Amino acid sequence: MSEILVFGHKSPDTDSIMSSLVMADLEKKLGNDSAIACRLGEINKETAYALNYFKVEAPKYIEKIDEGTKVILVDHNEFSQSVNGIENAKIIKVIDHHRICGFQTSEPLFYMAEPVGCTSTILFEICITNNIEITPTMAGLMLSAIISDTLLLKSPTTTIKDIKAVEELSKIANINYNVYGLDMLKAGTDLSDYSAEELLNIDAKIVDMNGNKVKIAQVNTVDIQEVLKSQTNLENAINQKIAEENLDLFVLAITDIVNSNSEVLVLGKRTDIVEKSFNVNLENNRAFLPGIVSRKKQMLPIMQENA
Amino acid sequence: MSEILVFGHKSPDTDSIMSSLVMADLEKKLGNDSAIACRLGEINKETAYALNYFKVEAPKYIEKIDEGTKVILVDHNEFSQSVNGIENAKIIKVIDHHRICGFQTSEPLFYMAEPVGCTSTILFEICITNNIEITPTMAGLMLSAIISDTLLLKSPTTTIKDIKAVEELSKIANINYNVYGLDMLKAGTDLSDYSAEELLNIDAKIVDMNGNKVKIAQVNTVDIQEVLKSQTNLENAINQKIAEENLDLFVLAITDIVNSNSEVLVLGKRTDIVEKSFNVNLENNRAFLPGIVSRKKQMLPIMQENA
Repeated sequence: MSEILVFGHKSPDTDSIMSSLVMADLEKKLGNDSAIACRLGEINKETAYALNYFKVEAPKYIEKIDEGTKVILVDHNEFSQSVNGIENAKIIKVIDHHRICGFQTSEPLFYMAEPVGCTSTILFEICITNNIEITPTMAGLMLSAIISDTLLLKSPTTTIKDIKAVEELSKIANINYNVYGLDMLKAGTDLSDYSAEELLNIDAKIVDMNGNKVKIAQVNTVDIQEVLKSQTNLENAINQKIAEENLDLFVLAITDIVNSNSEVLVLGKRTDIVEKSFNVNLENNRAFLPGIVSRKKQMLPIMQENA
Repeated sequence: MSEILVFGHKSPDTDSIMSSLVMADLEKKLGNDSAIACRLGEINKETAYALNYFKVEAPKYIEKIDEGTKVILVDHNEFSQSVNGIENAKIIKVIDHHRICGFQTSEPLFYMAEPVGCTSTILFEICITNNIEITPTMAGLMLSAIISDTLLLKSPTTTIKDIKAVEELSKIANINYNVYGLDMLKAGTDLSDYSAEELLNIDAKIVDMNGNKVKIAQVNTVDIQEVLKSQTNLENAINQKIAEENLDLFVLAITDIVNSNSEVLVLGKRTDIVEKSFNVNLENNRAFLPGIVSRKKQMLPIMQENA
């Protein structure tokens, strides 16, 4: 059987990495020995902490794929967030928890999406309904992904299914998820040795909004002001991205995971979208957004409407 | 709770009708009392035979929907095949077995697609995994849909899951599916009192092929020549459709369900797509396609490639 590449989105977060690993393992258990977990970018510190904790190797890095390659997408479906060459791949499965946009195939496929907090929650369900045994290691990877995407079940994206999955998975992995989860999230907030450009790449997504090319990057922190110390460097790096990638708008969301707020740093010719969406006036290119922590649930839909 | 409309594609076939009824029932069993089965067109004779057999009312006819209406799509996802106003609906679920194309939402949703022969096969699976009891009537509706879409498990779209579903469902419905299925399919081939225009609407889909607007209608028969007796009338009706709907290509597939072949009647400015796809020369606007019975599996993908 020809190889099947399994991967999440570019600028991978913990869910994209863990879901690739778990899905490739699941495919093997379902008889597809040729499934290979891959990644489309660097491992961030939070993910590195989790992989190290469970002693699992990072997926293989790929930059582009050949025409006709069989692929399984996890944690994304928009081609703009996927691997170079995705237009000519043979997409056989998608497991995702995002809106569907700009996705198309010429043939029927397996597509499983649910409006839950994390792709790994859906993978957990698939294991349960298919009676597939979950090892402690796989449980730990899924647990890490859900904690990451839901900010320890505090994000408004969190559903009852995510909570149940975390409870079950922490039993299987034999872990106190509150203790482990906070350690993992904090590991991700150590931004000290990132350059401004690297910081923008930690978790960034390009989204089409009514014809506007918008990039929204997000970093988690326990101290927003600490991140903004290097505002000038960040702005220079953002302006470079805008020029290189021909963006209409760049939003960097700096999210305080302890107090559940965000400060946004916004540049580009369509900054009005942010001002209109959140009813704020940007000052010094910034605005404070109380209670906003979820890009998917609290930022993207309202920005789509105002684009 | 606000009402949720559940419907299949325009020019509904048996799967679109039955899957709407079953999905609306399923939603009610899952707690959504406000789910209403709907249809976007006339009930064809095959479907009428099955509804009459199981003593079930046809779903409610709707022509368009208001902005913000909550909807569940079954048996389709392409907006061009859906209800008028779909662009501004709130799509909360999709259950389908087709390729994904031209579909998009602004928010995450439940999307379940599998490359199986029939939407009802997926609904059957959902019932099983959620421990939802299937009544003999609901089993009969799902059984009818699968028999219709797979031409009694003979179409190349048939998968092992469809076969298993038919076996299980015929036990629950207490029906010999071979006897019932052939009677149902034959009821659908009685085209005697259809006008040429009505015949083109029995099961028609509009598909975008590389920027070309292509309509492919299909009718089942036990005698291809009988249908072609009125070729001139059919051609007039087709040319009228082409003009009215601004089509680049119209294909009428007349499928012999006993011998598993099709004759196509082809008009429009891109008839070359059919000639190239099936390596045939149209004579008198027609070509015989041996072994071709499935629009989805044997016609659409190859035509997409050659468009």
